[in-house]
Amino acid sequence: MKVKEIMDKDFISVSPDQELVQVSLEMEKSRKFTTPVVDENMVLVGWITSLDVTRGLRENLKTVADVMHSKESVIHIHEDDPARMAVLETSQHKLVSMPVLGDNDVVVGLVRTYDIVDNLSHLYEIKVAKIFEAMEQELKGVSWDELMEAAAIITRRRTGHRIKPQEYEQRIKDSTFGEAIWATGGLEKFFVGLIAIGELVIARKVARARK
Amino acid sequence: MKVKEIMDKDFISVSPDQELVQVSLEMEKSRKFTTPVVDENMVLVGWITSLDVTRGLRENLKTVADVMHSKESVIHIHEDDPARMAVLETSQHKLVSMPVLGDNDVVVGLVRTYDIVDNLSHLYEIKVAKIFEAMEQELKGVSWDELMEAAAIITRRRTGHRIKPQEYEQRIKDSTFGEAIWATGGLEKFFVGLIAIGELVIARKVARARK
Repeated sequence: MKVKEIMDKDFISVSPDQELVQVSLEMEKSRKFTTPVVDENMVLVGWITSLDVTRGLRENLKTVADVMHSKESVIHIHEDDPARMAVLETSQHKLVSMPVLGDNDVVVGLVRTYDIVDNLSHLYEIKVAKIFEAMEQELKGVSWDELMEAAAIITRRRTGHRIKPQEYEQRIKDSTFGEAIWATGGLEKFFVGLIAIGELVIARKVARARK
Repeated sequence: MKVKEIMDKDFISVSPDQELVQVSLEMEKSRKFTTPVVDENMVLVGWITSLDVTRGLRENLKTVADVMHSKESVIHIHEDDPARMAVLETSQHKLVSMPVLGDNDVVVGLVRTYDIVDNLSHLYEIKVAKIFEAMEQELKGVSWDELMEAAAIITRRRTGHRIKPQEYEQRIKDSTFGEAIWATGGLEKFFVGLIAIGELVIARKVARARK
C-alpha cells in the first residue's frame, strides 16, 4: 500500500501572506489543528499549527509567514512512498498529520494520524472465523467440523480448559484477530496455535487416507 | 490489553476559571492541541482544544469556561476498558486524543492517537522470520531447511516465480508482517500461504515416517 492510498485529499491550505485572524477562522471551521502553507502553485513552503496561531494572536502578529515553520523543519512524505513509512514517521515523531508531496513538491494530500489508526485497525477487526474459513478452503479434504474439533482439542491441550467444538466455533465468530492476539499473548503465539490445529487435522486426514 | 497500558499519564490539565492567555502559553509549551478541563479533585468537567483557544483569543473571551466543551460532549474512556475500544473510538470519531477516567470520573491519563499508531505498528513490524521460527518450534521433527524448501516450492506454485530456499530465507528475515500482508493481499491470504507450507512439510514428514 502506498501513501496516496491512505492520504486525505480533502484538506485546507494557506498562503504565507494570509492574515492569522482569517486562518484561525478557517482552521476552526474545518476543525483542523494543522495545515500546510503553500505558494500559488500549491508547492509546500511551510507548515502551521493552531498553536502557532494562538501565539500569533496573543503576540499580535499579522500573517502566516510571521509564525509558520519552514519547509525544512516539517516532516513530509511522498505520495509514492510505502504507507508503512507514514506509520513509522507518525509514531516516531508523534505527529497529528503530515503533508504528502507529489512531483515538484506540490502538496497533494495529508496523512492524518486517525486515518492511520483506521487503516491499521481494520486488520484487527477481521473475525478469527475468516481465518479458519481460509484454512478450510486451503486444506482440501478437511471439513469445517473437523477443524472445529481439532481446535477444541488443541485448546484443551494448551489451556487445560475443556471446550466443545460448537463453543469454539461461536468464540471465533465473535472474536476478532486483534482480540485473539491479545488473548493468546502475541502474533507468533496466535499463529502457532493455528499451526497446531492445522497439523492435527492434516495428521488425521493422512491417517484416514492410509486406511 | 487495557486502556491504562497505552495511555499517557504525563498530561497537562486546566481549570474552568483559568485565563485563556495563560492556557495558550501552557498548551504551546507542552505542544498539545487538546487538554482536559478538571475541577480541584481532577474530576473531568470539560475539554478544550487549541482551536477553542484561537476563537477565545480572537473574540476576547477571558476564561476556559467561556470556550470549553462540556463533559457530556466529550468522548472519554475508562482506564479498565479494553485498548481496542480506544482504537475504535479514535478511528470512528477522528480523534487526536481522548481523556481516560478512573473511578469517580477522575482523569488519570490521555490516549493519544500517535501512541495508538505506535502500539499497532509494533505488530506490523514483527519480522516474518519470527513466525517461521515459531512454526519450526511447533512442528516437531521438521527442520528449518525443510521449512525453507517447502516455502520455496509453495511460492513457485502460487506465484510462478522460481525462488531458492536461501532467497526465501533472506526475504523473510528482511520483511515484516505488515509488508507481507500487503504483499500477499491480506491477512487471510498470508495465513493460507503459511498453512500451505505447513501442510507440505507435514506431508513430507509423514511420508518419511512411513518409509
